Amino acid sequence: MGVLVQLLFLLASTVELSPGISLEIHLLRPQLGSSGHHVPGLSCLSWRLGVETHNIIEWSTVPQACESYVGHYMLGDQYRKDSGVVVYEAITHAQSLKLAGDGKDIWVFDIDETSLSNLPYFAKHGFGVEAYNSTQFNNWIYEGKAPPLPESLKLYKKLQSLGIKPVFITGRPEAQRNVTAANLQNAGYHTWEKLILKGSSVTGTAVAYKSNERKKLEQSGYRIVGNIGDQWSDILGTNVGNRTFKLPDPMYYIS
Amino acid sequence: MGVLVQLLFLLASTVELSPGISLEIHLLRPQLGSSGHHVPGLSCLSWRLGVETHNIIEWSTVPQACESYVGHYMLGDQYRKDSGVVVYEAITHAQSLKLAGDGKDIWVFDIDETSLSNLPYFAKHGFGVEAYNSTQFNNWIYEGKAPPLPESLKLYKKLQSLGIKPVFITGRPEAQRNVTAANLQNAGYHTWEKLILKGSSVTGTAVAYKSNERKKLEQSGYRIVGNIGDQWSDILGTNVGNRTFKLPDPMYYIS
Repeated sequence: MGVLVQLLFLLASTVELSPGISLEIHLLRPQLGSSGHHVPGLSCLSWRLGVETHNIIEWSTVPQACESYVGHYMLGDQYRKDSGVVVYEAITHAQSLKLAGDGKDIWVFDIDETSLSNLPYFAKHGFGVEAYNSTQFNNWIYEGKAPPLPESLKLYKKLQSLGIKPVFITGRPEAQRNVTAANLQNAGYHTWEKLILKGSSVTGTAVAYKSNERKKLEQSGYRIVGNIGDQWSDILGTNVGNRTFKLPDPMYYIS
Repeated sequence: MGVLVQLLFLLASTVELSPGISLEIHLLRPQLGSSGHHVPGLSCLSWRLGVETHNIIEWSTVPQACESYVGHYMLGDQYRKDSGVVVYEAITHAQSLKLAGDGKDIWVFDIDETSLSNLPYFAKHGFGVEAYNSTQFNNWIYEGKAPPLPESLKLYKKLQSLGIKPVFITGRPEAQRNVTAANLQNAGYHTWEKLILKGSSVTGTAVAYKSNERKKLEQSGYRIVGNIGDQWSDILGTNVGNRTFKLPDPMYYIS
């Protein structure tokens, strides 16, 4: 908005408001306000924040105009730094826990875009701009070459040193158990307490499926001391654990 | 990290991993990765995202190094755009509702940094870098000059046109009822179903206090069709409403 328009808007708004209240809360230091203009893809920044804060839900694909922005974000420093802060908080939390030490303290990990990264796939498919193609995506999964998310691998190793056991709960189907297990091991996740995949009879949302699996774990005597995923559906619902952590993922949404 | 170090890291990591899995998920297009460097205050970006996604909790003040970053953010376009996206989603949600039309459909608004903005105060006090000073802050509150958050005022007006009544629930104490009511009215919030302030006997967290007040509303027959606040404590707990919306606030944290 030009300065003149801003001033007119300010004048118009002060007619309406009283006493001494200006509508324009961002005019305090307007000379600083322009800093945002140096960042490319401004509205994509807001879109991504909306996704990460669970204000924007039930979306199907990344907005076309944000392909370049999301690509730069995912392949650049910021995604790594953002993930690093999440894992720093997770490790700090884990270190603060008083553990029972009876082998029942577990940490729930999601797999895709949490433990493993499908970025090599999404980099070839518009970073979420293209509609989901299950054939193509499953072909990639069956290659078993997804690299680890380095920050999550760091968390995994730290938790093991603390005696907290990992449990993977994934929306991947049972049919992908072998390739998933091999991929996890090759990526550095060498052992786990459980690897839970989605049975073919399971229907409904990821929130319901994952809540149910966590409930079964707790009914078996496990204590979920932490829970990390890239989707809100990983950490919403019931039996979410002592504390939850949300990694960034602006590429897709699973309800 | 320099390119040489990256390459060494890559070489080191490929020794460990197999078969054909590289640890460095961001080296796919390293030439794009540098885009982040154009943004000032990178680690502050991660810190702010961590706060907004509820990964960073129980913090007391904004990191000293992020004062300028938070100031630029709050006074610049991005805070307004980010808030605008939240309100766009809120209005879209409100318009999608099938309302009973019996006057019992309500929307819960938090006040500070949601309905009203204390940015004129925080701009003079380091944007959250300074420790909270109740005397100084209450002096500002008693001036009754907090401007509206323009996006929230827009939502308020839209909800009124749809027949959804506003209920304000605030952590401000009962002693501030008169100044708060006058400030709201002068800022453009001309009417409301209820204005709920914190009684002097209420103890515990904001989550517990606000949950309890929402519960009482529902027990009185109201339906909370939406709920908006700038703190996670506004939208966590029980009786949170049909859908919740989180406005940005990197200046302070209330548990």
